[in-house]
Amino acid sequence: MTSPNETFQTELDRVADLTNRHLANLLDRHLGGEGPAQVGEAMRHALLGGGKRIRPYLVIRSAALFGVSEEAAMPTATALECLHTYSLVHDDLPAMDDDEMRRGRPTVHVAYEEATAILVGDALLTLAFETLADPQTNPDPAIRNALVLALAKAAGTNGMVGGQALDLAAEGKSLGLDEVLRLQAMKTGALFRFACEAGAILGGADETQKTALIRYGKDLGQAFQLADDLLDHEGDAEAAGKAVAKDAERGKATLVALLGVDAAKTRLEEIVADAEEALRPFGEDAVLLMEAARFVARRKA
Amino acid sequence: MTSPNETFQTELDRVADLTNRHLANLLDRHLGGEGPAQVGEAMRHALLGGGKRIRPYLVIRSAALFGVSEEAAMPTATALECLHTYSLVHDDLPAMDDDEMRRGRPTVHVAYEEATAILVGDALLTLAFETLADPQTNPDPAIRNALVLALAKAAGTNGMVGGQALDLAAEGKSLGLDEVLRLQAMKTGALFRFACEAGAILGGADETQKTALIRYGKDLGQAFQLADDLLDHEGDAEAAGKAVAKDAERGKATLVALLGVDAAKTRLEEIVADAEEALRPFGEDAVLLMEAARFVARRKA
Repeated sequence: MTSPNETFQTELDRVADLTNRHLANLLDRHLGGEGPAQVGEAMRHALLGGGKRIRPYLVIRSAALFGVSEEAAMPTATALECLHTYSLVHDDLPAMDDDEMRRGRPTVHVAYEEATAILVGDALLTLAFETLADPQTNPDPAIRNALVLALAKAAGTNGMVGGQALDLAAEGKSLGLDEVLRLQAMKTGALFRFACEAGAILGGADETQKTALIRYGKDLGQAFQLADDLLDHEGDAEAAGKAVAKDAERGKATLVALLGVDAAKTRLEEIVADAEEALRPFGEDAVLLMEAARFVARRKA
Repeated sequence: MTSPNETFQTELDRVADLTNRHLANLLDRHLGGEGPAQVGEAMRHALLGGGKRIRPYLVIRSAALFGVSEEAAMPTATALECLHTYSLVHDDLPAMDDDEMRRGRPTVHVAYEEATAILVGDALLTLAFETLADPQTNPDPAIRNALVLALAKAAGTNGMVGGQALDLAAEGKSLGLDEVLRLQAMKTGALFRFACEAGAILGGADETQKTALIRYGKDLGQAFQLADDLLDHEGDAEAAGKAVAKDAERGKATLVALLGVDAAKTRLEEIVADAEEALRPFGEDAVLLMEAARFVARRKA
């Protein structure tokens, strides 16, 4: 018998394959020019090196609520994955988290060199916006523009980059619960939120629908991070593909450390319940997004 | 008596002051949120630490050809300066050009730390796109979108980032004339080209007008780089605010090294003449842009 999580994994894998094909096509088109060979190779290493592609999945399924086809949502999904990947490449740098392995393979600065990794990140960040602004993403410039603006806000100083800065500043300090929640909402949550907001933008959602999807996206970001902290804590290095409890070792505050394992698990279930509540107005159409929330919370890797 | 260059310097200084005020306002608005204090401070250090503001000037004056006011062109000009500044911050990093001084002040990774400099660059790159996509930049989403697309193309793998990668790959190798020209067209030229293209986009220029401004922008980028190489070669460390002939010391190919000083100077005059030729259709309206080309070619710092 297959569990609900296994069924959902199949669905996620299908969309991940689709995403990977589109990402490879995007790079083929983009790197056809006079650009330097090594940066192109390193961009492929970074972007096509695996990953669950949960963010693209959320774009696809949020957009599907409004009848937007997977093909039509895919350019936006790939742009988001470019942006997410840039953040991983820069976060892995020696001056940042100094990680040598990512998804079971050497990080970009290890496989190539540090300068290349900096440029690969810069190039992927830029490519994300180029992709969103491309008429292929959507025929309506107002929609493309709304996507650019929303992604820039999610990725910048008041979103992901700001969260990363807070995270670096927090090493060795003890943060309170509110501070950890704020940091995680910026560092991890902002892109999950954008993924769902992007579906609403592509689908021409009204404000109530957009607000509901943003609430769901925020919940999902929190659930993802909390599940990550629990996995780190329970420590299965092989399954997670990274060093055991690395954040805790570095003295970074996690919700698990602050709340304890049991309270963290309870909180995770509450977040999933809130995510499901947020989706209620969409009824049956949102079944897969509900499954996504449960999958993110209960994943083992 | 004041020379034409001195008169133009006064005009450039006026626009630089205006740009600086707008950049300071942009940061005030942008950093009002929950973002981390240190990255905000370091963004101010990077963005408000001087600079000639030639690229914003070109945006303003190109747009003015079509009756666009300085105020209306300023958000686009500030976005470009954010993007240019990000490239300086990342280029100065230890893994890249490893520069400790910039415009007579410590570079961001020296004044703060390397991780902060990486994040400041990422934040400024993102802020450039956020600014262009903001309705304050232009009421027409199609125009905002065209600006985002043009800047992303100019800044990415087939533009500035690609040029920087070619430059790093070229250290210690001897490049031919065509290779150096290609590298410089990407690394330096792409943003100059964008500055003038942006004016055309803001002004609703027709294709002929846009092509003329792009030709002028390309010329200006070449003239700027060649004048830089000549200044480096003639070496006035105090005036240029950076180490004497640093590029040549590193074994980076320059046109001056390839052509010799006299041929380089002749070439510079030819480029300025081509820039003036490109502007001819605009007649008297383009007088200040013509002066800009001569100023860039003949500047002493």
